[in-house]
Amino acid sequence: MGEKSTIVISGHQSISYFSDVRNLCWFLEPEFANSVVRLHKLVGNAITEDHHIVVGTGSTQLFQAVLYALSPPNASEPMNVVSAAPFYSSYPLLTDYLKSALYKWAGDAYEFSKDGPYIELVTSPNNPDGFTREPVVRRTKGLLVHDLAYYWPQYTPISFPADHDIMLFTVSKSTGHAGIRLGWALVKDREIAKKMINFIELNTIGVSRDSQLRAAKILQAVSESYDHVDNSKETEPFFEYGYNIMAKRWKQLRAAVNKSKLFSLPDFPPGTCTFTGRTFESQPAFAWLKCEGEIEDCESFLRRHKIWTRGGKYFGVSSKYVRISTLSRDETFDLFTERLSAMVLESP
Amino acid sequence: MGEKSTIVISGHQSISYFSDVRNLCWFLEPEFANSVVRLHKLVGNAITEDHHIVVGTGSTQLFQAVLYALSPPNASEPMNVVSAAPFYSSYPLLTDYLKSALYKWAGDAYEFSKDGPYIELVTSPNNPDGFTREPVVRRTKGLLVHDLAYYWPQYTPISFPADHDIMLFTVSKSTGHAGIRLGWALVKDREIAKKMINFIELNTIGVSRDSQLRAAKILQAVSESYDHVDNSKETEPFFEYGYNIMAKRWKQLRAAVNKSKLFSLPDFPPGTCTFTGRTFESQPAFAWLKCEGEIEDCESFLRRHKIWTRGGKYFGVSSKYVRISTLSRDETFDLFTERLSAMVLESP
Repeated sequence: MGEKSTIVISGHQSISYFSDVRNLCWFLEPEFANSVVRLHKLVGNAITEDHHIVVGTGSTQLFQAVLYALSPPNASEPMNVVSAAPFYSSYPLLTDYLKSALYKWAGDAYEFSKDGPYIELVTSPNNPDGFTREPVVRRTKGLLVHDLAYYWPQYTPISFPADHDIMLFTVSKSTGHAGIRLGWALVKDREIAKKMINFIELNTIGVSRDSQLRAAKILQAVSESYDHVDNSKETEPFFEYGYNIMAKRWKQLRAAVNKSKLFSLPDFPPGTCTFTGRTFESQPAFAWLKCEGEIEDCESFLRRHKIWTRGGKYFGVSSKYVRISTLSRDETFDLFTERLSAMVLESP
Repeated sequence: MGEKSTIVISGHQSISYFSDVRNLCWFLEPEFANSVVRLHKLVGNAITEDHHIVVGTGSTQLFQAVLYALSPPNASEPMNVVSAAPFYSSYPLLTDYLKSALYKWAGDAYEFSKDGPYIELVTSPNNPDGFTREPVVRRTKGLLVHDLAYYWPQYTPISFPADHDIMLFTVSKSTGHAGIRLGWALVKDREIAKKMINFIELNTIGVSRDSQLRAAKILQAVSESYDHVDNSKETEPFFEYGYNIMAKRWKQLRAAVNKSKLFSLPDFPPGTCTFTGRTFESQPAFAWLKCEGEIEDCESFLRRHKIWTRGGKYFGVSSKYVRISTLSRDETFDLFTERLSAMVLESP
């Protein structure tokens, strides 16, 4: 997209810690906030009205900010944090690495039976398996956090504008700019937003203004790619570009899996995308692959065939499952599906 | 400095999480690392040889990474963290806000009498009072962290190249670019560097690449300002510019304090700067002001005179002291010294 997504920052610009002293989130760049609102309005995947925008150094930092904000400072027991298995493998690590007395990982939401307050992470589409999710514990003292990192039309049909109390998004999964380290939370409750902001003040005294200015430019360019759609390759709107790559990859992946017969992949129900009007099956950023038959340790099995994956045990389930990124570079993805389709059952 | 410090980043650049997969610190931009080495070599304030560079989202994040790296994961008691009073007011907050079982704030290093391992933060020049510091506990089980954020020649004479095990620096205090959210640690021990890197992986999955690219450009421009020094105003080398502003401000501040007679400021011994050859007294980024006479709560007293400060109790000492930034904008600084010099003792 050339100059449309290029950022220029002079040495004398944005020097101060402060982006906007009138905003509750004083380290939020107004341009970035505007670009987030515009993009959600365009795509229709989330309601920004009546939500505070809190910017974070990736949704990873925002996740920790949410735990801090939702856990009472002086409780006798740490707050329980759960998510339905298979859950994102970083959740337990991020919850427990500092051995906080404020919160602790309590495992699979399906198995959670304790009384008292809890935080349930609802990841939809889910990392690692790609399925659309709802809360599963459903008790009165539950606090819900919706991690919507993958709720974008290149991965899944947008079915409605999400309007939850706390929603997390990230630039890395919407446009692919992972190194920019930027995420945003949409938060209804002012006091919760305030505590999240307080966490980010303590943890990193705000968020890179340079990354925010760049992300603003990039998200604006994504929105602008829909201003004058004429279906020529050169001005292909952003999510069409992403959708087409993901569709091609999933076709290629499913063909490889069918050929090998050693594995299976999730089947997704078709859905109609309110953004594009297209009806399609989810084509997630990860393949959640199951080794069929007698292979018990799918990760080791695949490693012997030079395919590097993350095993099911990290996600709270059987090691018959593995997660593989479908967002690698073309050469890597081609090599992966080649190796997969060439695989036959070894003699034991 | 115009284009010399301007950064241009295209939409397709630095998309990946990874900056340099061959480096232990895989999220460190090589250009940023080079600019840090070059600047330390030029100024002579720290030895970079035999140190790993770990980049962080400000030295605030690096401080937390150090606590994580130096605290054993399975100790029965949290590691004690101390610093000599007056200490940087954020240290206790950053150590305790997550109620970690790994480490805890143990207060003023002068009063620390427990057995066993401890971490001592040696801030030199010190925030808030500007004095040069050495460790004070001096026991065998002590782990030292040198916070050298203000060890730059606009603030203090550079007396030797520091060569400690763990040294923290930050862009915000070297060039003033606080909103860039970047700091760096120089770490001798590979295993400690590795654990710090692991913390940053968990905390924010690396550090903004955009900020690092921008900081690289800015630090290079600072170094380059010494390539062809001709003493004209237009090409004034960076630290000369900073030194002159700080010298002017401290002269103005001391005049105001002398006029009012209600306050006192620290006196710094003159030292010869190995970088400039100049002999001068420290001119710190903060004024550590003491209310003399009967004023016990200096912060409240000054607030009544429309001067906003941070009181001594936040720094572990008497409320007769306050910290005031000397890095405000010219208008603000002028107003501050005006109000200070106009102040006379109120009737009780």
